[in-house]
Amino acid sequence: MKFSIKKDILLNSLNKVSKALSSKNLIPVLSGIKFNLTNNGLFLSASDNDISIESFIDKKDLEEIIEIGSTVIQGKYILEIIRKLEGRIVSFELLDNIKVLISCGKSEFNLNCMDANEFPNLNLEEQKEPIILRKTEFKNLINKTSFAVSTQETRPILTGINFVIKEDKLECISTDSYRLAKKSVTLPTKITEEVNVIIPGKNLIELTKILEEEDDDIQMHIFNNKVLFKFDNTLFQTRVLTGTFPDVNRLIPDSFEVEIKVNASEFYNVIDRAALLTSEKDKNIVKFECENNEVIVSSNSPEIGKVEEEIDVEKNNDNNIKIAFSSKYMMDALRTIESKDVILCFNTDIKPIIIKDAKDKTLLQLILPIKTY
Amino acid sequence: MKFSIKKDILLNSLNKVSKALSSKNLIPVLSGIKFNLTNNGLFLSASDNDISIESFIDKKDLEEIIEIGSTVIQGKYILEIIRKLEGRIVSFELLDNIKVLISCGKSEFNLNCMDANEFPNLNLEEQKEPIILRKTEFKNLINKTSFAVSTQETRPILTGINFVIKEDKLECISTDSYRLAKKSVTLPTKITEEVNVIIPGKNLIELTKILEEEDDDIQMHIFNNKVLFKFDNTLFQTRVLTGTFPDVNRLIPDSFEVEIKVNASEFYNVIDRAALLTSEKDKNIVKFECENNEVIVSSNSPEIGKVEEEIDVEKNNDNNIKIAFSSKYMMDALRTIESKDVILCFNTDIKPIIIKDAKDKTLLQLILPIKTY
Repeated sequence: MKFSIKKDILLNSLNKVSKALSSKNLIPVLSGIKFNLTNNGLFLSASDNDISIESFIDKKDLEEIIEIGSTVIQGKYILEIIRKLEGRIVSFELLDNIKVLISCGKSEFNLNCMDANEFPNLNLEEQKEPIILRKTEFKNLINKTSFAVSTQETRPILTGINFVIKEDKLECISTDSYRLAKKSVTLPTKITEEVNVIIPGKNLIELTKILEEEDDDIQMHIFNNKVLFKFDNTLFQTRVLTGTFPDVNRLIPDSFEVEIKVNASEFYNVIDRAALLTSEKDKNIVKFECENNEVIVSSNSPEIGKVEEEIDVEKNNDNNIKIAFSSKYMMDALRTIESKDVILCFNTDIKPIIIKDAKDKTLLQLILPIKTY
Repeated sequence: MKFSIKKDILLNSLNKVSKALSSKNLIPVLSGIKFNLTNNGLFLSASDNDISIESFIDKKDLEEIIEIGSTVIQGKYILEIIRKLEGRIVSFELLDNIKVLISCGKSEFNLNCMDANEFPNLNLEEQKEPIILRKTEFKNLINKTSFAVSTQETRPILTGINFVIKEDKLECISTDSYRLAKKSVTLPTKITEEVNVIIPGKNLIELTKILEEEDDDIQMHIFNNKVLFKFDNTLFQTRVLTGTFPDVNRLIPDSFEVEIKVNASEFYNVIDRAALLTSEKDKNIVKFECENNEVIVSSNSPEIGKVEEEIDVEKNNDNNIKIAFSSKYMMDALRTIESKDVILCFNTDIKPIIIKDAKDKTLLQLILPIKTY
């Protein structure tokens, strides 16, 4: 293997595949990034058995291919080395299959490397008819649902985001059993067979980090036991969670006793201030009391003190509500609201609270109240 | 106590005094900030027994003084509350001496507070003739020496910076016994009596964080057991370390076998790259070999690989040097060099390396080599 490449192009690809490197990997070769130089270009790949990433650099983006070949280089070092090199072009040369010489300007790194044959086959298969959607839409789906996945391994299924595709509607749902986030998009084409798959939330967060800004397409290739995402010359494969995701739609009420419209960022700031006197220990409880058209948000901690703040709202009827909830969960939900206003929907003080974007009908957040009254 | 004040003015002062708050304080009242409202203005103070800070807000910078008085408010909460309030003016009112009502816009905080009489007297005394220097000069003294203090409590004296004042020269010295930093300034007036005091490095770092940008003066009021700094309506008092600081000047050679001039940022980057293959465990050793006018910087880690890089230098004679040192210590020293070039001075491979700024003769860095050849 012998070639040269612009530093920035290589660094961009290394940054992507390095997301699949794990420090606690038990298989030594998986601490490395596989370099596979073919006559078509350079394939970089890495895997931690949970996610696998391959990034391809076309031969037209390489400076020179002198000899094809492959090797595995320590992931931790190669990324830092390329980042800190000064100079525009980096040259690689594999020596005796056990060392790789990396040169750039006056710097010469001579790194021990591993046999590419020891690197597992990542089986990055594609479907004939993948699901296709815009990258920005995909990012939105993940950003507005991933925060609500469970971080507890007691019910592993809840650490994932449930993707449900029916005809041309893709719906993402996540829940940690105290709150729920749901966001959907319309796909450009209808699919014939219904899809229902649960993808680990943390893997999807890693995926959104390496999606470039340009708003082109991302493809989803869905299999029984894995999902492959394809975009920007990159393949990102993740395992899926096995089991049945709870049917959460039955938890979401159709009608409400009280609907309140309020400026989203003002409401966020009021909750944020009330949260100052709460603590994780007491579930960050804040109280919300709506009487006529006056809403009071308050919190109370006997040792520290109390806070109370009034907020202007628009209400759909004369019904009133007194309810308490976690300020943290409410703020997480409010962060997904992009419109100026948010709609808060209540029934009784023990029924779920629904939080909607005043304009985006495809988004719904739910949080369970905390009984205090 | 009843008054109102612009939020930004109060926040600026609270940010300063909060540096003296300690979370692990055993005396409950010291977890608070004392508010003392007089007819002249508002005094805010805090102390963790190691440092004490008082910030004064003149009555002309208060909106309204309705009733003078004093109280102690939980430091952790008051800072966050004031930061997150929306509105220009904040009002304070002490109720029954046990609660303070803080209002701003529609927000009302009702905080438990503590009796001001329980707050210790901080004894913030001043000298008749303090040492006076420019704030920028003072910051420079601390920034260029504080990194070299010891972090080990085995020799507590080395956790401090030694201030030595003779006539109109103030010299700051720090050492952790593996390296040494020294920087001096000329004072506007000569002092009659020699001063030698050791101030904890971490306290001086806290002090530089609250020095505002304007380049006016800072006063040093030096006592046997404490030093008071006065600036920007603020008093900052720190304890001093007792004991004798080692006489480090005898470690610094007067003449050198080899003097090398090199571009400081280029040299820094070369060391930074060579450091990539080193580890804390092996003391981050890099090798520096100078033969004729060629300098090679290298490092070698049998498990990972090796790196080698040539660098252009100017040399004062034909003597050569092969030496090894900690890349971390060299980079720390190089960060204090503001000129384009740095001068590296060597004798033998077991004698101290001196690092000088090509232009600033008041700065000297020393690091001990590591024997490997």
